[in-house]
Amino acid sequence: MAKTKRIIITILLRLLAFGATLSATVVMVTSHESAKVMNIKFSAKFSNSPTFKFYVTAEAIATGYGLIVLFLSSRRSVDRLIVILDVVIALILTSSISAALAVAQIGKKGDSHAGWLPVCNQVPKFCDHVTGALIAGFVAAIAYLVLNLYSLHVFLTPLFPV
Amino acid sequence: MAKTKRIIITILLRLLAFGATLSATVVMVTSHESAKVMNIKFSAKFSNSPTFKFYVTAEAIATGYGLIVLFLSSRRSVDRLIVILDVVIALILTSSISAALAVAQIGKKGDSHAGWLPVCNQVPKFCDHVTGALIAGFVAAIAYLVLNLYSLHVFLTPLFPV
Repeated sequence: MAKTKRIIITILLRLLAFGATLSATVVMVTSHESAKVMNIKFSAKFSNSPTFKFYVTAEAIATGYGLIVLFLSSRRSVDRLIVILDVVIALILTSSISAALAVAQIGKKGDSHAGWLPVCNQVPKFCDHVTGALIAGFVAAIAYLVLNLYSLHVFLTPLFPV
Repeated sequence: MAKTKRIIITILLRLLAFGATLSATVVMVTSHESAKVMNIKFSAKFSNSPTFKFYVTAEAIATGYGLIVLFLSSRRSVDRLIVILDVVIALILTSSISAALAVAQIGKKGDSHAGWLPVCNQVPKFCDHVTGALIAGFVAAIAYLVLNLYSLHVFLTPLFPV
């Protein structure tokens, strides 16, 4: 009974994380906007920024991993590997979202000390896409965090009886 | 015998991580440089950027945690908590270093699409400090990654006999 509950919680968290990483990837990849400022035309897209490229790569890797694990999770033989890979994926997701958030923050607020102006007024749709992708990525990162804490709790409890 | 080896490896990794996070905190906090560009005086310091403030906070938390755990690690009763907290600290460190790296990359290379100019030519010493702090933080993050993979491996192996 406890085992069935554990499997259901795990699968729900994995489905949530899979949906979130997939959305984050799609929303970030489709972000594109052209704008004209003082007669200079420029286009904003994710591939202009190495950080956003890393974000898309990380979310895509997590999406692929999430899909594979959904099919494998019933096999006990790979359980240990999955616990370890879950931690690695959580680290990759955390890394990518933190980096993208830092850049997005400069895009929105600018950095007056460094002389970097905010760009979201010029390309509001692009910024909306990025915000959406970041929210989805954040949900995925939280899902993996909960998943990790939960599986560590489940696996470690029998080792350390109170 | 195997247990002694495990304890020694763990303590060495923790000492390395502790030294690295401490250096990262100190080097980042002491980064400060004033420059004059076109008669406008400006000063670069870590507290100008929310991302670098987050970096210092995260490294300081990891330093404090590292110190406490070095004293506690001999008590078996807190082993499970430490395994879980190690994962959390690794996530915090990864997050802070990724964010700081993304901002530092813009500081060094700029972002021509967004019209953000590189600032490292104006404040080279500040950039050197940030680079040093990032390298130290990177060492700490790797130490925690290895520590996590190692303790997951050690604790999970008896649960999943081949």
